[in-house]
Amino acid sequence: MRAVVYAEPGEVALSDVPEPRLEADGDAIVAVRRAAICGTDLHVTYGHAPGMEPGAVLGHEFTGTVVEVGRAVHRVKLGDEVMTSDFTACGHCWWCRSGRHWHCAERQFFGTGGVFGPVLPGGQAELVRVPHADVTLSALPAGLGPEAALLIGDNLATGWAACKQAAVVPGSVVTVVGAGPVGQLASLAAQVHGAAVVVVSDPLPERQALATAHGAVATDPETARAVVDSVSAGRGSDVVVEAVGHAFGLDAALDLVRPGGTVTSVSAHTDPGWQLPLARCFGAEIVLGFVIGNSLPLRDELTALIGAGVLDPTFVVTGRGQLEDAPKRYHDMWQAREMKVMLQLGDDRG
Amino acid sequence: MRAVVYAEPGEVALSDVPEPRLEADGDAIVAVRRAAICGTDLHVTYGHAPGMEPGAVLGHEFTGTVVEVGRAVHRVKLGDEVMTSDFTACGHCWWCRSGRHWHCAERQFFGTGGVFGPVLPGGQAELVRVPHADVTLSALPAGLGPEAALLIGDNLATGWAACKQAAVVPGSVVTVVGAGPVGQLASLAAQVHGAAVVVVSDPLPERQALATAHGAVATDPETARAVVDSVSAGRGSDVVVEAVGHAFGLDAALDLVRPGGTVTSVSAHTDPGWQLPLARCFGAEIVLGFVIGNSLPLRDELTALIGAGVLDPTFVVTGRGQLEDAPKRYHDMWQAREMKVMLQLGDDRG
Amino acid sequence: MRAVVYAEPGEVALSDVPEPRLEADGDAIVAVRRAAICGTDLHVTYGHAPGMEPGAVLGHEFTGTVVEVGRAVHRVKLGDEVMTSDFTACGHCWWCRSGRHWHCAERQFFGTGGVFGPVLPGGQAELVRVPHADVTLSALPAGLGPEAALLIGDNLATGWAACKQAAVVPGSVVTVVGAGPVGQLASLAAQVHGAAVVVVSDPLPERQALATAHGAVATDPETARAVVDSVSAGRGSDVVVEAVGHAFGLDAALDLVRPGGTVTSVSAHTDPGWQLPLARCFGAEIVLGFVIGNSLPLRDELTALIGAGVLDPTFVVTGRGQLEDAPKRYHDMWQAREMKVMLQLGDDRG
Amino acid sequence: MRAVVYAEPGEVALSDVPEPRLEADGDAIVAVRRAAICGTDLHVTYGHAPGMEPGAVLGHEFTGTVVEVGRAVHRVKLGDEVMTSDFTACGHCWWCRSGRHWHCAERQFFGTGGVFGPVLPGGQAELVRVPHADVTLSALPAGLGPEAALLIGDNLATGWAACKQAAVVPGSVVTVVGAGPVGQLASLAAQVHGAAVVVVSDPLPERQALATAHGAVATDPETARAVVDSVSAGRGSDVVVEAVGHAFGLDAALDLVRPGGTVTSVSAHTDPGWQLPLARCFGAEIVLGFVIGNSLPLRDELTALIGAGVLDPTFVVTGRGQLEDAPKRYHDMWQAREMKVMLQLGDDRG
Repeated sequence: MRAVVYAEPGEVALSDVPEPRLEADGDAIVAVRRAAICGTDLHVTYGHAPGMEPGAVLGHEFTGTVVEVGRAVHRVKLGDEVMTSDFTACGHCWWCRSGRHWHCAERQFFGTGGVFGPVLPGGQAELVRVPHADVTLSALPAGLGPEAALLIGDNLATGWAACKQAAVVPGSVVTVVGAGPVGQLASLAAQVHGAAVVVVSDPLPERQALATAHGAVATDPETARAVVDSVSAGRGSDVVVEAVGHAFGLDAALDLVRPGGTVTSVSAHTDPGWQLPLARCFGAEIVLGFVIGNSLPLRDELTALIGAGVLDPTFVVTGRGQLEDAPKRYHDMWQAREMKVMLQLGDDRG
Repeated sequence: MRAVVYAEPGEVALSDVPEPRLEADGDAIVAVRRAAICGTDLHVTYGHAPGMEPGAVLGHEFTGTVVEVGRAVHRVKLGDEVMTSDFTACGHCWWCRSGRHWHCAERQFFGTGGVFGPVLPGGQAELVRVPHADVTLSALPAGLGPEAALLIGDNLATGWAACKQAAVVPGSVVTVVGAGPVGQLASLAAQVHGAAVVVVSDPLPERQALATAHGAVATDPETARAVVDSVSAGRGSDVVVEAVGHAFGLDAALDLVRPGGTVTSVSAHTDPGWQLPLARCFGAEIVLGFVIGNSLPLRDELTALIGAGVLDPTFVVTGRGQLEDAPKRYHDMWQAREMKVMLQLGDDRG
Repeated sequence: MRAVVYAEPGEVALSDVPEPRLEADGDAIVAVRRAAICGTDLHVTYGHAPGMEPGAVLGHEFTGTVVEVGRAVHRVKLGDEVMTSDFTACGHCWWCRSGRHWHCAERQFFGTGGVFGPVLPGGQAELVRVPHADVTLSALPAGLGPEAALLIGDNLATGWAACKQAAVVPGSVVTVVGAGPVGQLASLAAQVHGAAVVVVSDPLPERQALATAHGAVATDPETARAVVDSVSAGRGSDVVVEAVGHAFGLDAALDLVRPGGTVTSVSAHTDPGWQLPLARCFGAEIVLGFVIGNSLPLRDELTALIGAGVLDPTFVVTGRGQLEDAPKRYHDMWQAREMKVMLQLGDDRG
Repeated sequence: MRAVVYAEPGEVALSDVPEPRLEADGDAIVAVRRAAICGTDLHVTYGHAPGMEPGAVLGHEFTGTVVEVGRAVHRVKLGDEVMTSDFTACGHCWWCRSGRHWHCAERQFFGTGGVFGPVLPGGQAELVRVPHADVTLSALPAGLGPEAALLIGDNLATGWAACKQAAVVPGSVVTVVGAGPVGQLASLAAQVHGAAVVVVSDPLPERQALATAHGAVATDPETARAVVDSVSAGRGSDVVVEAVGHAFGLDAALDLVRPGGTVTSVSAHTDPGWQLPLARCFGAEIVLGFVIGNSLPLRDELTALIGAGVLDPTFVVTGRGQLEDAPKRYHDMWQAREMKVMLQLGDDRG
């Protein structure tokens, strides 16, 4: 089958690879219908992917149709259109029982090398094997489109989880540092949680414009503090979501948060260390949290909100293409010509 | 000075009454700029007001200008445009310290007879005396208009408090039974708390239309269950806010709530008793709460949300008038020709 | 096999009944090691059990050893010592996913007639069939005895769930009305939640003594209000747990709760209705909740607390016996000669 | 009057200083009855106190009797025995209204130089001036002794606030790194919040023994991880409270917390920076919070718990003395011969 594979640092390729087969009773095989390119894919293809071997199939954001199931799969059925989490987990251990699937000992991430632990062949392919299918997959309810469903699995869940961890409440002033797909969706999530104002800081004018069009007050990084001051009576932001992907985003976030406020980082930090301004964090009683975003406990509420029309995450998709376009589309995203690209496979590939 | 007074069951009158004077060091005198007629005013003038004496000044929803302060008043100053709570409290006891001012032993309600305990002359007057002024009043921040500020003091705080007590969270299905001013604002409050859908049930077409225009799914009471079923996969409503003002509203609410859900009643119930369907409430694990709505701990967040443009409660005002129009306007509201009337006094009476 | 069965109103019998067999792939068969008699068993054998047929096997509190499993059972294994919930649920639907297994459409209760919906043969027997075994059963961790494990499944989970629903927090004044097994364990649960004082009200001196020995301030119903006043500066109880089993318990609870406080009823109410004092509940902003107690989402925390020695629920067991003693022991409990009787089966029957 | 003053780095002295006088209408003068030496006092007298001038009166933990009040003081009265916060705040601004008095623009700390911003003469003196007395002071309720009351004002509030910020819930595994007074009281606080196990790590045997005697599992730092593993099924601690006072405590805390867990630091960090292990914190989704401990919103619940006998914080006092003993007692604490010394003044000085 055709798949997008890691070639060498900075390059992906379209390749012919063997079709996946069921390996355990809880596995399913999914025929992919949509696969998206995530900032994390850029991370792992531009040199930061320990364990990523040339030829490894990329991609952890996808939706599709179940075409084969193991004997122990009871909840999803052949022919189901399904959404997926970007990783698998057992569903039964202490971590999974308490909604913390990310920390399950059996966690495996799709298509990312060893950055996030054991890795599975990814979803930018015609077929993908999904372990623990009853936990990892859910059938799409009527009215939920494949692209919104795909975004639930990673980018939207991450922005949403940031608001939950930071306890955004009605009336909060929230600032998002970095207006990529996760930042844009964190802004949307904060608005649904009742934020009085969401400030989005990013140097790119087109990302500022997108944030503005979706309810935020957008600003350049240089003027961010002045904007935050103006909407918070000079106090600073109750909550700052750091979605930049580099440690300097944390410095910016600490500059914008009010005393007693919370910084939640959703960036995939790979720097081993960062200098925390200790005396200042103590005196200002800052809370600094890191969140990866586990869609599994969030699916029901996100599905309900999208179904009711309160949330539509698909505005973050700036470009579309087909599987064979992937090599070019990775470059477009790496060079910020696109923010998020959706690959279309199968019958409705357009 | 001129004031609206209780005349006899079913009648109010415009009357000349003595001007109020400072009686304690913590008092302030407020020159009223806006005074609104509340459903509770209808309650107390149509025969349900134990302790209401002819000649008592009506009204508990008002805003205005501070024209005199006692020696112990430090936070509000002469000339301040102020908002008020609909009752006063000491601000210092255990109840007040924990945000439960309504249960303060020194609570006094403006203009309502003995329904809510000790009563003060009300705010449908040119001047009103406000005890515990430093607790009861706040200066209006720039940009907060007098009508929005007035609504914070009672109707909006009540709808908001219902959502807080019932813990409306993003994704909730919320139903509001009764689309008067508090019901309309409970609908708005639920949307700001992230409800996936708010269903509003009321027999009056114009109230349904108003709810629809402000984001709700409106319905007749007869079709309410079918509508709730259609938006909740047949489960029922996560939260029902009962805002009818009669016990039958509670029966309707129990019919609409899902197992394990919450009914919060914001109606001013004066019936001594009501038959609770005990076995059903037990089997379905229902929570039934009553909430009056104390604006004092909610002012900051409501002011922030109104200031940021997230919330605008003034759409519930269907008519305006001047103080001398009050007798006619009470009849208009009693006969449901108006939903909420705002009386304008002073320079900008229009 | 031998089992305790319903004979006629007011009488149970030891009977020989057919052994249960696997009926679905998710079933397990458990060889019972401990089975307890619950107040609900008295309810259903003394005439309040619609759907209870003579010969029906009683009992919903038990622990034992897995002796047979269906093909779809993966989490519990042959030979496992297991605890159980008092009902089964599918584990996969919206209700189960959100921790509300009690409202699952596939809920079936063990041994109780139709009071709680569809009924399964009960656990006061040598063998019992457990549907949805992977959801309903858990292997006992090292150090958790069978009697503590049995109590997690119903009485302790119920008292614990009451504290959760009522949001008992450190410093709360909590009152428990009715000092049967659930009331005693609600008292213990409230203490673990940090209650400053737990008042337990019951007319029976021996139940008062037991509550006192386990950290509560015990009182007769007649003096309960005075005791509550003395520990709450006259305010009333922040939370009242109603564990009487009759509607008059609710009246007592409303008399003890402070304004703005919460009454949580854990009694199995079968009265169709009860007169709620509406005006008073409104003026005092009371919250009244009903909770049945679902052990499934509580197992991990209760197991951890028992394992660490913080909680020991077994003090509520006042008598023990063997399966053949059940008819006499039911009478002992009905006549309040015992509070809770534990039947011992199998090798360690004593 | 006599007072303990800062002399030079590493030395305090007993000195004769002018008596304080009322400076504002909201001030009160308190005749000190108990004053304690806090670890922070050691910090500011051993060289880490920017702005500490020789002759400055030390001490921020005290209780006493009100001997003079300004005209605007209404809640505390002459002759009241009072407790105090370790800092003052206005009580009226946005920060104070929302329970965040620590961040009030008018915050002034007693006796600590410029470490915590503007500084007031301290409470290790015969008399102390207390600004915003109605906010800062409370009369002691019957039965609350002066030493317990003193501890509410700082050390106990800090340990308690750590449990609140970290959301310790029943069943949590909590570890405290550093068993000084705040660490000991954090251990106690975690137990009252229902922790299943509290592990306390400290190198000093006598502090380990004290923690053990008050309900914790004590351990050396070298064996801490093994102990935590043994009580958490190898997962790590749900919550770690860092109470060491040096940055290495944060490294220890990160080593003990489980994935998805929370580290709350209550140490007065004066190091400008510290190297946060970024990739690890991200992958493990750690939350790291700093909390100073504001007793003002905690007084009611702590007073209730102490009054009811659930909490007794006075076990952390290892030595007592009189005002003139202070210079020697500072050395005793600096050299860890005492953990916490209470100075007794006035009639009951013993």
